Amino acid sequence: SLPRGMHTVTMIPGDGIGPEISSAVMKIFEAAKAPIQWEERNVTAIKGPGGKWMIPPDAKESMDKSKIGLKGPLKTPIAAGHPSMNLLLRKTFDLYANVRPCVSIEGYKTPYTDVNLVTIRENTEGEYSGIEHLIVDGVVQSIKLITEDASRRIAEYAFEYARNNQRSSVTAVHKANIMRMSDGLFLRKCREVAETYKDIKFTEMYLDTVCLNMVQDPTEFDVLVMPNLYGDILSDLCAGLIGGLGVTPSGNIGANGVAIFESVHGTAPDIAGLDMANPTALLLSAVMMLRHMGLHGYGKKIETACFDTIRDKKVLTKDLGGNSKCSEFTADICRRVQDMD
Amino acid sequence: SLPRGMHTVTMIPGDGIGPEISSAVMKIFEAAKAPIQWEERNVTAIKGPGGKWMIPPDAKESMDKSKIGLKGPLKTPIAAGHPSMNLLLRKTFDLYANVRPCVSIEGYKTPYTDVNLVTIRENTEGEYSGIEHLIVDGVVQSIKLITEDASRRIAEYAFEYARNNQRSSVTAVHKANIMRMSDGLFLRKCREVAETYKDIKFTEMYLDTVCLNMVQDPTEFDVLVMPNLYGDILSDLCAGLIGGLGVTPSGNIGANGVAIFESVHGTAPDIAGLDMANPTALLLSAVMMLRHMGLHGYGKKIETACFDTIRDKKVLTKDLGGNSKCSEFTADICRRVQDMD
Ligand SMILES: CC(C)[C@H](C(=O)O)[C@@H](O)C(=O)O
Ligand SMILES: CC(C)[C@H](C(=O)O)[C@@H](O)C(=O)O
Repeated sequence: SLPRGMHTVTMIPGDGIGPEISSAVMKIFEAAKAPIQWEERNVTAIKGPGGKWMIPPDAKESMDKSKIGLKGPLKTPIAAGHPSMNLLLRKTFDLYANVRPCVSIEGYKTPYTDVNLVTIRENTEGEYSGIEHLIVDGVVQSIKLITEDASRRIAEYAFEYARNNQRSSVTAVHKANIMRMSDGLFLRKCREVAETYKDIKFTEMYLDTVCLNMVQDPTEFDVLVMPNLYGDILSDLCAGLIGGLGVTPSGNIGANGVAIFESVHGTAPDIAGLDMANPTALLLSAVMMLRHMGLHGYGKKIETACFDTIRDKKVLTKDLGGNSKCSEFTADICRRVQDMD
Repeated sequence: SLPRGMHTVTMIPGDGIGPEISSAVMKIFEAAKAPIQWEERNVTAIKGPGGKWMIPPDAKESMDKSKIGLKGPLKTPIAAGHPSMNLLLRKTFDLYANVRPCVSIEGYKTPYTDVNLVTIRENTEGEYSGIEHLIVDGVVQSIKLITEDASRRIAEYAFEYARNNQRSSVTAVHKANIMRMSDGLFLRKCREVAETYKDIKFTEMYLDTVCLNMVQDPTEFDVLVMPNLYGDILSDLCAGLIGGLGVTPSGNIGANGVAIFESVHGTAPDIAGLDMANPTALLLSAVMMLRHMGLHGYGKKIETACFDTIRDKKVLTKDLGGNSKCSEFTADICRRVQDMD
């Protein structure tokens, strides 16, 4: 059993640069004396009884026990019929909310400043239902499934998130002018939930209008909540505003505290093993994780060290505009973390 | 019958600021001696025999004869069950391609420069099929319909467009990793058509990746082709990059030369009738129209005058950062057009 105050986290290093950036994160956590004990697990989809795809039992067991995972990038399946591990993980643990804070990073120049918003994406249904039919030759339909329960659940999550994170407004993003029934249902649930959160301002906006306004002035947005596909799009768009997937954290949240935090960039096989990768996205995801676990002090310390290193511009990986190795960038953050004690 | 060389165009002034900006466009066309005879028609949805929504017969007849329309903004229907006129027009004339060139305007500052791309949106099916069901209480499905014919048609349009407009690449935008059958079919048709246009480079990209890359570096894109909803989103996003809907032209193209060009901004009821509106989007749509009709010289002349007025910064409407009235902005363009003779 664990020493008092320690927490187990399931670490899924992932593929490509995954192992490097995971070990960078673990080093920084060690330097910060964060009370985390890692349980490393690999995940690749395996075929269970009945031919159903599932994640390996030892990974499942670890997550069932720890409830909290941190995950590096996984390579996209090449074989047809092979499922996306990312989708399988979301499904296995019913991680219904995908949360992505997009906050401008001081010293990392992009066309925008002062971006400070959060996209909250329904992560289990919508266009991702996986239900498709061939009607007749040359005519195909995909089904977008929207349920009252999942819509209410994500709306509640969004408002709770806003309240707990000192945010003042929630915008529901939709196309209910076109998908009157499905997006209409989603929107209705958001409105109902909004009624019970009088302290949070509620607005509704068409997805196209959000995209347009977002690139003109992202500072007008705060918390945004939306169905699955819209979230897929908007979360990437917003990541682009602050510098891309290399610096954007992400969390997939389920019921009863279960959650997996992950960097959403790719496996970058071209630089894997060359000590060139940027661990920032995974590190900031790990910071989200610490906050989720109530370990705010450690979260703050690590985040500050990471942002200081970036603002300082002396030790940066190549993608951030520098010449340093992953290990050097990591060491700089470790040093800052230790200096804070 | 019309004087030799003259062409009839159906003008749908629209609501709110529609009449003002339409009359601005007509004035500029007159100054440019463009060989257009306008046939003004109002459109509001009316209920035809059998309760089907239709556009007024005199508007339909005019369009059937002229084949070419220019349209200002139409107010969104408020009554439930009342159709969007925009959608009804696309449907009535089978305007299957929505084309939006997004080109940075010199002198109009936005966070981006040198944007020069075109979104080509399938305009008839996909998520806009209008087919939705209540499965059981609290469970709704919307159907996204993708057909081989419509996919091939829009892909062919995109490649033809690229070839005829000296553009070098076409990117198909999709989520075939998620909607394997529907977006898969769309993508397959794009690939097939690409095979027959060896002079045009073909690439495929996920919608989320396009959004991310678009806000990081829009200059990497050229012609983009995609299903209906993705086009709705991306075209607005791209309009945002160059200054918004007030300066972005748009065309809805059908078979046999039929087309309606339109400004895609709103009716702006708050400033309607105050001589404050900006006619640029409608004017540039009219320029697209002239090119579509083969009247390139007139198109060039008017476009140049409009861009010169904007670059000059002396006579600009409020939304463009100036203090001038719509009529003054229009007069400045007219003067330039006349000076070119
Ligand atoms: C990997 C892929 C299936 C996934 C998605 O489309 O949801 C990705 O884009 C994401 O946003 O996590
Ligand atoms: C008015 C609305 C129905 C329309 C759409 O969603 O297609 C608009 O956003 C557009 O892009 O023309």
